[in-house]
Amino acid sequence: MVEVAVVGGTGYVGGELLRILLQHSDVEVGLITSRRMAGEYVYRVHPNLRGYTNLRFEKPDLNRLSEFDIILSAAPHGAMLNQTAELVGMGVRVIDLSADYRLKRPELYEKYYGFTHPHPDLLEKSVYGLPELHRAEVKNAQLIACPGCTASAAILALAPLSKLIDSCTIVMDAMEGSSARGAEPSQASHHPERANVVRPYKPVGHRHTPEIEQELKAFSGKEFKVALSTFAVDVVRGILTASHVFVEADKATLWRTYRSTYGREPFVVLLRDYKARYKLPDPKIAVGTNRCYVGFEVDPDYGRVVVLSAIDNLIKGSAGNAVQCLNIMLGLDERKGLDVIGCHPI
Amino acid sequence: MVEVAVVGGTGYVGGELLRILLQHSDVEVGLITSRRMAGEYVYRVHPNLRGYTNLRFEKPDLNRLSEFDIILSAAPHGAMLNQTAELVGMGVRVIDLSADYRLKRPELYEKYYGFTHPHPDLLEKSVYGLPELHRAEVKNAQLIACPGCTASAAILALAPLSKLIDSCTIVMDAMEGSSARGAEPSQASHHPERANVVRPYKPVGHRHTPEIEQELKAFSGKEFKVALSTFAVDVVRGILTASHVFVEADKATLWRTYRSTYGREPFVVLLRDYKARYKLPDPKIAVGTNRCYVGFEVDPDYGRVVVLSAIDNLIKGSAGNAVQCLNIMLGLDERKGLDVIGCHPI
Amino acid sequence: MVEVAVVGGTGYVGGELLRILLQHSDVEVGLITSRRMAGEYVYRVHPNLRGYTNLRFEKPDLNRLSEFDIILSAAPHGAMLNQTAELVGMGVRVIDLSADYRLKRPELYEKYYGFTHPHPDLLEKSVYGLPELHRAEVKNAQLIACPGCTASAAILALAPLSKLIDSCTIVMDAMEGSSARGAEPSQASHHPERANVVRPYKPVGHRHTPEIEQELKAFSGKEFKVALSTFAVDVVRGILTASHVFVEADKATLWRTYRSTYGREPFVVLLRDYKARYKLPDPKIAVGTNRCYVGFEVDPDYGRVVVLSAIDNLIKGSAGNAVQCLNIMLGLDERKGLDVIGCHPI
Amino acid sequence: MVEVAVVGGTGYVGGELLRILLQHSDVEVGLITSRRMAGEYVYRVHPNLRGYTNLRFEKPDLNRLSEFDIILSAAPHGAMLNQTAELVGMGVRVIDLSADYRLKRPELYEKYYGFTHPHPDLLEKSVYGLPELHRAEVKNAQLIACPGCTASAAILALAPLSKLIDSCTIVMDAMEGSSARGAEPSQASHHPERANVVRPYKPVGHRHTPEIEQELKAFSGKEFKVALSTFAVDVVRGILTASHVFVEADKATLWRTYRSTYGREPFVVLLRDYKARYKLPDPKIAVGTNRCYVGFEVDPDYGRVVVLSAIDNLIKGSAGNAVQCLNIMLGLDERKGLDVIGCHPI
Repeated sequence: MVEVAVVGGTGYVGGELLRILLQHSDVEVGLITSRRMAGEYVYRVHPNLRGYTNLRFEKPDLNRLSEFDIILSAAPHGAMLNQTAELVGMGVRVIDLSADYRLKRPELYEKYYGFTHPHPDLLEKSVYGLPELHRAEVKNAQLIACPGCTASAAILALAPLSKLIDSCTIVMDAMEGSSARGAEPSQASHHPERANVVRPYKPVGHRHTPEIEQELKAFSGKEFKVALSTFAVDVVRGILTASHVFVEADKATLWRTYRSTYGREPFVVLLRDYKARYKLPDPKIAVGTNRCYVGFEVDPDYGRVVVLSAIDNLIKGSAGNAVQCLNIMLGLDERKGLDVIGCHPI
Repeated sequence: MVEVAVVGGTGYVGGELLRILLQHSDVEVGLITSRRMAGEYVYRVHPNLRGYTNLRFEKPDLNRLSEFDIILSAAPHGAMLNQTAELVGMGVRVIDLSADYRLKRPELYEKYYGFTHPHPDLLEKSVYGLPELHRAEVKNAQLIACPGCTASAAILALAPLSKLIDSCTIVMDAMEGSSARGAEPSQASHHPERANVVRPYKPVGHRHTPEIEQELKAFSGKEFKVALSTFAVDVVRGILTASHVFVEADKATLWRTYRSTYGREPFVVLLRDYKARYKLPDPKIAVGTNRCYVGFEVDPDYGRVVVLSAIDNLIKGSAGNAVQCLNIMLGLDERKGLDVIGCHPI
Repeated sequence: MVEVAVVGGTGYVGGELLRILLQHSDVEVGLITSRRMAGEYVYRVHPNLRGYTNLRFEKPDLNRLSEFDIILSAAPHGAMLNQTAELVGMGVRVIDLSADYRLKRPELYEKYYGFTHPHPDLLEKSVYGLPELHRAEVKNAQLIACPGCTASAAILALAPLSKLIDSCTIVMDAMEGSSARGAEPSQASHHPERANVVRPYKPVGHRHTPEIEQELKAFSGKEFKVALSTFAVDVVRGILTASHVFVEADKATLWRTYRSTYGREPFVVLLRDYKARYKLPDPKIAVGTNRCYVGFEVDPDYGRVVVLSAIDNLIKGSAGNAVQCLNIMLGLDERKGLDVIGCHPI
Repeated sequence: MVEVAVVGGTGYVGGELLRILLQHSDVEVGLITSRRMAGEYVYRVHPNLRGYTNLRFEKPDLNRLSEFDIILSAAPHGAMLNQTAELVGMGVRVIDLSADYRLKRPELYEKYYGFTHPHPDLLEKSVYGLPELHRAEVKNAQLIACPGCTASAAILALAPLSKLIDSCTIVMDAMEGSSARGAEPSQASHHPERANVVRPYKPVGHRHTPEIEQELKAFSGKEFKVALSTFAVDVVRGILTASHVFVEADKATLWRTYRSTYGREPFVVLLRDYKARYKLPDPKIAVGTNRCYVGFEVDPDYGRVVVLSAIDNLIKGSAGNAVQCLNIMLGLDERKGLDVIGCHPI
């Protein structure tokens, strides 16, 4: 039994980490931190955990954290940036679910996050925690930077195709549930305002863009530009990405490419089945699971391939994917704690 | 490993039985039947099961079914009424999720279901499959009649109180999700008509009424009248019941009563915690679990107790509860296959 | 053309007042106040008003307000309590949409709102602004206290019945949309937490209880106790009330009673039509209108009548009802600005 | 007062036509037809119309229809194809809301609708009923073919830009509510299956594609290819289109272009206001209105313009737009019956 600490435990990602780890047969949560809720029972914030844990939130303390071999950090971007560096320096293995160490090029932090990154050296060393692309590096990583939720779905949709096609600009629209914006109330998240929307959230300039491009390049060796737009829709969980790629490709080649990339992946499911009730990816059937559904459609009239991917943003898009990395780091079966069949309908 | 058959596998209850049993370490599904979908892969109807089973639906056949020791039957009311009797006669243990064998008094079938029950003897023998009230009988039952979804929530809400108070009429309102009406499309379930409703579904005359009264009597020895009204609300899963009982009772007595009844129940959770974000039962936090949340509020101005209960209608209200019975019948830990932490938010 | 002022214009009730009055052929909004948003264009807060007005919010100022003959006040409870008294003292007619002057018995403010009412004399003079019960008094009122949203639906449901039956305790459950809680974001209204709920909001002690009892007494001369519980459901607009009354009554008598009370009311619609797709009241079909749908069901087994009513909480439950009062005060056709057919499906 | 007939009155478009026309001061509905519901009161199918009309559905009969000067036809595609031709031949002016006469090139009916068009001559004569592009022709048209719902939003989004840029391929994603699929229940529209989806509906090959391309060409004289994909989201009403155009354009030029095209249009609202709560088009604020909100965002990093448009699919996407055409044909103010402020929040 490995004991880990979870930093930033009051948010939705922190809650999901706890939910998964409390059901994990080889891992135990020894510490859960929260500045604001320190002293409070975890189950009062995360109602689903009532009866499963008597943990209380504790204030984050570097000394205490440094006693753990592995820390999962779900604090907001920037909040633990320096502490993460310190902890890594003290030999702690950190799985960072924030954006703090995702981008290899420090200048992109200035452009997309508005600050000068203080640890460019660590950016080089960090491993982008998407097992499907970096399984081997994850195994021995000291610092894992888990993907953004939209980025997970985007990269898994496009990686196989990126090997097949030339560098180009890809248009991608992503539709996202409200939990992707976190647990903090705001005017925009107020139910009467957020219900029934189909709201342009980031038509341009989305922060996940550089991660997607970075990883497609790392995987394929080619430079793709991903013109991403994101939209808020009226679900709590779920992301659908739709990518438009102008390339002549037949279905058989696409199937072959996607199958050869993902055939043995435990959490990527290819879905394009016109005899089934759910014919193509839809986050409705990914909710509650660590799965990424991937499918595509060919548009011969326009020389276009539309690639679709669907995830639960809090699981494969965040906490589940992090636990998948944790399993790899610990040499466990990757599916440990994650091999749950989703509910339908939900 | 016990092999069971599931009858009536294309509905939502059938799908949930499969979902739960496919994750159950001691039970295997050997056969799944459907008249209409015979020959089709199960995962084409239940999209969540893709990758977890290659079972296909088979036509229901009595000879084939009689080879199993235990059958779970999720066919519509009446569809398997006689076959169930035959199977029981052949020594098969049947867990019936329909209403066919729930009511002890045959005349109630005429009133509420519109037919003369052909097997009144079996009504006597059948065990009402609510473990919290009938655990010992479930263990050795030949025929288990699982509760209706609303009835499960209603009985668990009121049973403890029924011991405390005199016979009386109790007003109960229940608000229910769309999956409680089954998998068959209709004008009333068409999304544009069903979304955004707060629709009186059965203001009077609900079929679950007699089960609730029967079980409260069995538990308390007293005659209660439960004036039930049900409403359709815009969720897919979930039932909330609110019962109004006019009795002078203090919180401490109520707590004591509910705790002594449910203190060791694995799936009943008492919830009345004004320091928590979810202070009282809400199906939102029961979805995906076999839990029944029970809480109450005292209204000194009106001499009233309001008892609240919340379940996932497809799990504790149906398939999960049936598997809990199955575990008891097999002498397994009741939580086998069911001890899953729900997702939040969802 | 009558010029009115709207106080407290940034909330949802203020927005609805503006929407209705901007389409009213005989009334003009001369001033709209907001402390927090003073200087801002109204259409930036209320997006539906873009293109219909160039009004800006102004700070509330008593001198300025006193220039108007009629003021509609949608400020939060307590915020304008004294100013309202001053304005009335200066001869301004005030239509108050807050709870400040609804209750005739000052001690109820202590119990339900937690303060000692400073103007008990004005409580006597104020007219409870429900035209169906107080049309004649509304006409000449100096101060109108508009009903709470749940109270409007509750009173219209029960008033006719109250004449028919003896004093008794009535159980009422009300299910309500998120806009009934106002425009201020909170943890409880955060979309991921508020979506998919069936949440006990006020199982006991709801503030609208005393208004309902007061008005039933005023109408029938009898003392009824209304044991109200309210629930939050996942719609933006709408309230359904369900009242349980134990009385032997046949359908014909009930029809007669309701028809004779509401037969000429422009905004009360009796609905109990088993040949129609919408057979009983449902707020889904009231949304966007000033209608209150009222229906009932008789339960001979339990000697019970279930009365149902459905409104749009922001219209008949608030702003629309206030404009109906305004029309009466001005001697206009009551339907002016309000006679809009709702959209279906929505 | 002009008397018109409405053909195909039981669907959602038929219902909206009735709703709008019943509130129109210069038009009266003299006949409403339905094969299936003949004899039934209109208000039993369209619950919002209760109290506003005592019309009953009548069987469609050509002789009876030919007595009207103007007919609005909301029958399904193909159902009235020949009758429309006959009626036009008899001098009746027909506003056809189906796809039957939208496409100028008959061969596109074979490709997209699967039949050989029997009246290619009428295709030439019919006027595409989008007032913003064809106001003058609408005025004297004998046969108006109203746009598809997605097409309305798409064309209004792109028309201004089409004048500014060269021929190219434009990627467009559209997210749509459930009412856009009509009033007929199906497996896909069953609430438990349709709620919470973000479902690829037509990733390729959408039938509205050729109308969009036809109209952009008619407006700009250039050939655009519009690679359209559509998605079903969990709202009842509303369409958002997002178009990605790779062109270097500055905001000022775009503003100028859009303003000069739509500056005087009564129902097109330019929305790009970062000081407002709703900064860009969102169907949430178009619901219940005949408005099309249009906005855009410039992406300098990718040389991209993202154009956004939002409508209520049943109003500006269908019935409202048809009445706008009717007003033009009758020489009335275009806003007659349509100038309604939408509710917010809804």
